[in-house]
Amino acid sequence: MTITREDCAARDHCDRLAMFRDRFVLPPGVIYLDGNSLGPLPRATPARLLEVAEIEWGTALIRAWNRHDWIGLPRRVGEKIARLIGAPPGSTIVADSTSVNVFKALAAALALRPERRVMVSEAGNFPTDLYVAQGLAALLGRGHTLRRVEDDDIAAAIDADVAAVLLTHVDYRSGRMLDMAAITRAAHAAGAVVIWDLAHSAGAVPLDLAKCDVDFAIGCGYKYLNGGPGAPAFLHVAPRLLDAVAMPLTGWLGHADPFAFDGDFRAAPGIARGQVGTPAVLSLAALEVGVDLALEAPEDAVRAKSLALTGLFAGLVAQECGDFGFECITPAEEVRRGSQVSFRHPEGYAIMQALIARGVIGDFRAPDVLRFGCTPLTLRHADVWDAVAILREVMQMHAYRAPEFRVRHAVT
Amino acid sequence: MTITREDCAARDHCDRLAMFRDRFVLPPGVIYLDGNSLGPLPRATPARLLEVAEIEWGTALIRAWNRHDWIGLPRRVGEKIARLIGAPPGSTIVADSTSVNVFKALAAALALRPERRVMVSEAGNFPTDLYVAQGLAALLGRGHTLRRVEDDDIAAAIDADVAAVLLTHVDYRSGRMLDMAAITRAAHAAGAVVIWDLAHSAGAVPLDLAKCDVDFAIGCGYKYLNGGPGAPAFLHVAPRLLDAVAMPLTGWLGHADPFAFDGDFRAAPGIARGQVGTPAVLSLAALEVGVDLALEAPEDAVRAKSLALTGLFAGLVAQECGDFGFECITPAEEVRRGSQVSFRHPEGYAIMQALIARGVIGDFRAPDVLRFGCTPLTLRHADVWDAVAILREVMQMHAYRAPEFRVRHAVT
Repeated sequence: MTITREDCAARDHCDRLAMFRDRFVLPPGVIYLDGNSLGPLPRATPARLLEVAEIEWGTALIRAWNRHDWIGLPRRVGEKIARLIGAPPGSTIVADSTSVNVFKALAAALALRPERRVMVSEAGNFPTDLYVAQGLAALLGRGHTLRRVEDDDIAAAIDADVAAVLLTHVDYRSGRMLDMAAITRAAHAAGAVVIWDLAHSAGAVPLDLAKCDVDFAIGCGYKYLNGGPGAPAFLHVAPRLLDAVAMPLTGWLGHADPFAFDGDFRAAPGIARGQVGTPAVLSLAALEVGVDLALEAPEDAVRAKSLALTGLFAGLVAQECGDFGFECITPAEEVRRGSQVSFRHPEGYAIMQALIARGVIGDFRAPDVLRFGCTPLTLRHADVWDAVAILREVMQMHAYRAPEFRVRHAVT
Repeated sequence: MTITREDCAARDHCDRLAMFRDRFVLPPGVIYLDGNSLGPLPRATPARLLEVAEIEWGTALIRAWNRHDWIGLPRRVGEKIARLIGAPPGSTIVADSTSVNVFKALAAALALRPERRVMVSEAGNFPTDLYVAQGLAALLGRGHTLRRVEDDDIAAAIDADVAAVLLTHVDYRSGRMLDMAAITRAAHAAGAVVIWDLAHSAGAVPLDLAKCDVDFAIGCGYKYLNGGPGAPAFLHVAPRLLDAVAMPLTGWLGHADPFAFDGDFRAAPGIARGQVGTPAVLSLAALEVGVDLALEAPEDAVRAKSLALTGLFAGLVAQECGDFGFECITPAEEVRRGSQVSFRHPEGYAIMQALIARGVIGDFRAPDVLRFGCTPLTLRHADVWDAVAILREVMQMHAYRAPEFRVRHAVT
C-alpha cells in the first residue's frame, strides 16, 4: 500500500514526542537528517552558555569552581548520562573526547588481562577505535595485535587469547546495531573484557549496560545528546572493576586528592579516576542542557518513533526512488537497527551535496554511503516524506551531476 | 623610600597597557589576583559564544565544519599561540587538556630515545606532570623511572641515561622561572629530549621556543590566555621532529586523511598529528578571543608591567606587612621571576579565605603558599596597593582567625 504525505502528517498528529521539536533551533528550509553527526542546538543552550560565561566565569571568577560547582560538573553530567544508558550511579563520568576515552578504556582493559595479547574489533568499526587500538599496541610494544572481523564473526573470534573486545554498538555507516548482551556474554565466557562504543547509541536507542554486565563503555556528547560541536565524551566503567582499574592517563583530576598537590599519583576512588585534566566547563555546560532534554523523553517513545522514522524512510525510498539504484544497508530487522538509514550509491557524494543544496541535510561517508539520521526529538514523519520527495527530484532531474556537487570538502 | 598609593596611581597614569583593562569583565569590589589560575572573562567572549552557538551551530548545523571552518580551529588558534610563544608556524596546535598533552609529548619524547630509561623532572613540578610521568612509566612497563630533583640540580641530573626532561618553566607555587635556553642546551648536550610546560608562561612572560631549540612544549588556555574555565590546551613540537614523532594517542583527527575513513592509522603530516578526537568548538572559540587579546599587547610592555607589578607587590608586603611572618618565595631576581608573587605563611589557607571574603582574590596552594597572580592586562598598580592594605588589615585584626575561614573547600 502506497504511503502518502497525509499518512505521514497523521502520524505526526499522534506523536507523543512532537512537543520536543520546539525545544530545538531548526533553521527554516532545512530538513535535518544529521543529528547522528551533530545534534541540533537546544533552544536553552545559548542562555546557559551566557550564564556560565557572564555570571559564573565573569562574576565569580575562580570562586565558581566551588560556588557554581564546576568541579562537580563531570560527575553530575556523568550521573545523568548513566541514567540514559542504564548504568548504575557512580559508574560514568564526562571527560575528554571520545577518542581519548577509547584509549583509556582499552588500555585499562588490556591491563586487566596482562597475559593476553589480542584485541578484537569489527573490520568496519569507526576508524578512531581502530586507530587507537593500533596506536596503543605500538606504544605498549608488547606484541598486541588487532583482530578485525566482520560483524557476524565477532563471537567466534573471541577466544582465550583475547584480552579486549572493542565494538561500536550501532555502526556509523549502516546503522546496524549489535547484540550487546549476547556479545558481552560470549566475551566474558572467553575471559575477555568488553568495551562498547556508544557514539551512535546514547540518546537514540534503549541501553541497559548494567543488565548486559558491560565492562567499559564510552560515548559521544555531540550526536544524539545534542551537546554541541566537539562536546566532551563520557566514560563508563562497571563498578565491580572500578577500584581495580588502572587508568593510563593519570592527570591531576584523577588523583584521590587533587588539591593536596601531592607528588605521587594515587588514583581517586571510583569513576573520578577517569578524569585527567581540568574539565572544559563551557562545553560541559552546553552538554548538560542536551542531556537534560534527552532525559525528559520517555525511552520507549524515543525508540518507537526512531523505528517508525527509519522504517518509513527505507520504505519511502523503496516506494519513491526504487529505480535509482539505492541499496539500503540498514537492517530491516528492528532489533538490529539503530536510529539512521543508510544507502549505498556510486554517486553518493554528489547526490548528498545536491540534497544539502536543497536543504535536506544528511551526510556522506566514504566510499559510497549516504546516511540519514532520524532523531526522534526533532524529526517529523512528514519531514521524511519531504526529504524522500526531494531525493526523487534530485535523481529524476540528474541534479547531482552539476559540477559544483563533485568538489570534495574538507569535512564530508 | 616608602611607596604610597599616589605613587601607584601615578604609575597607572603612564601605563601603556591601561586600555586593556576595559576589554575584560571585572566584577566591582574585586581585586583579581588569580588570573594565573583562571584568567578573567574578555568582554568579547560572550558575544562570540552566542555567535558560535546561535549562528554557526544553530543555523549552519553540520555544515559549520566547513562553512565556519570549525575543522580549522585547532590549527588556526595554534598558529596564533605559536606567535605568543616564539614558535615557528606549523608547530603548534590546540587540542585536549594540558594533562593529556603532557602525556602525548612525554610518550613521544620517550619513543625518540628508546634505549634510555630515565625521565627528569623537578621535585616541585605541578603534580599532573609528575603523575603523567608515573602513569606512563607504569603503562609502558619497561622500567622507566622518574628522577625528581631540586631546581638547582636539574642540569646536573641530566646524564646519558636520561631520555626526557619534563619541566614547568614558571613554577606554579613560587613563580620561579627556569632558564629555558640553558637547560635545553644542557639536555641536548646529554642527548635528552626536553618538554617545557608553559602553563604559567604563555601570555605572561616572553618566550622564544625557536631560539631555545625546544623539542616539545605544552601549555594551558585558561590562565594568562584567558580562554575560559577548562579551555583547551596547546601542544608544540619542533618542526625538525614533527615527521619523526609518533603520537601515542592516535585518534581519527590525527590521521593523514580523517575523512577517508581508512581502517589503518597513518599519522597526519606536521602538527596535525597532535590532534586526537573532535575539537571542542565552543571552548576553542572562547579561547581564540583570549588569544587574540593577548596578541594585541606588545610583549615588552607586558613583561615590563608584569615585573613592575610583582616587584611592587613584594615590596609593599615587606613595607606594610613586615611584622606578620610572610616569607616571600618568589625570586627577587627579575630574570628568574614569572608573573606572580607567592608567600609562605603557616596560616596561609585562612588568610587567603579572609582576603577573598574582602574581595582580594588570590589563591592558596597546599601546604602553606599564598599566591598572587599579577596579570598585566587587567591589574593596576593601585590595585596592588589596595590588596596589600587589605592584607595588612586582615593581619592586624586577626580576621583570618574567624572559624568560617578554616573550613576547607573542594577547590582551594
